[in-house]
Amino acid sequence: MTEDVTGPDFDKCELIPAIAQDEATGDVLMLAYMNKTAYEETLKTGRVCYYSRSRQKLWRKGEESGHVQNLKSIYFDCDADTLLVKVEQIGGAACHKGYRSCFFRQIDPQTGQVEIISDRVFDPADVYKKS
Amino acid sequence: MTEDVTGPDFDKCELIPAIAQDEATGDVLMLAYMNKTAYEETLKTGRVCYYSRSRQKLWRKGEESGHVQNLKSIYFDCDADTLLVKVEQIGGAACHKGYRSCFFRQIDPQTGQVEIISDRVFDPADVYKKS
Repeated sequence: MTEDVTGPDFDKCELIPAIAQDEATGDVLMLAYMNKTAYEETLKTGRVCYYSRSRQKLWRKGEESGHVQNLKSIYFDCDADTLLVKVEQIGGAACHKGYRSCFFRQIDPQTGQVEIISDRVFDPADVYKKS
Repeated sequence: MTEDVTGPDFDKCELIPAIAQDEATGDVLMLAYMNKTAYEETLKTGRVCYYSRSRQKLWRKGEESGHVQNLKSIYFDCDADTLLVKVEQIGGAACHKGYRSCFFRQIDPQTGQVEIISDRVFDPADVYKKS
């Protein structure tokens, strides 16, 4: 079945959260944001491009680390204000802290204690060298 | 390994996006928001509670439809500004439109065409009856 809706509604919100999920493992890797330009570049190039809120510019994921995300498939939600991208994560780690997923800390609901639940894939100091 | 970080930083952002993932299937179900009260209630009760931005009040997911989300585990990200909750989705559908996941529409990157990729679990008209 096809729909007339054309996709995420950037008129409603200029920045739309995008969830990146590892296509192979199903792991949720990270959440970032896309503006319309980032979204269109992602579709066109097949490489995931976000919009960095802190740097206020397009963020071609992996442009510094080499850990790019190849787009496998892309979805939007019922309210047309969230995206889900299934990706192939090059380099094995999405997180700038060197973890496979940005969600590497688990909270125990009973105690509130925080535990790191995964190992580092890389050392950030090696990947993000100061120039 | 345990960490001194205590969890998501509600001082940084009052509303924090929370990704709900089906613990059993790995499907990403929806994205909603939590404020500190919703987060604390979720931990305490083991039932996922969001904060509705449109209604500006706590949103005990499933309180009308019965399709509650039981919390299985909870994680926060490297920037402490996004949550991931793994849940047991009662009723088989997270989306108010009757789909298993809110991300039931896929975009073809080449053509931009939108396709509905899943079947309805329930008819919203039956579940959300007008009183």
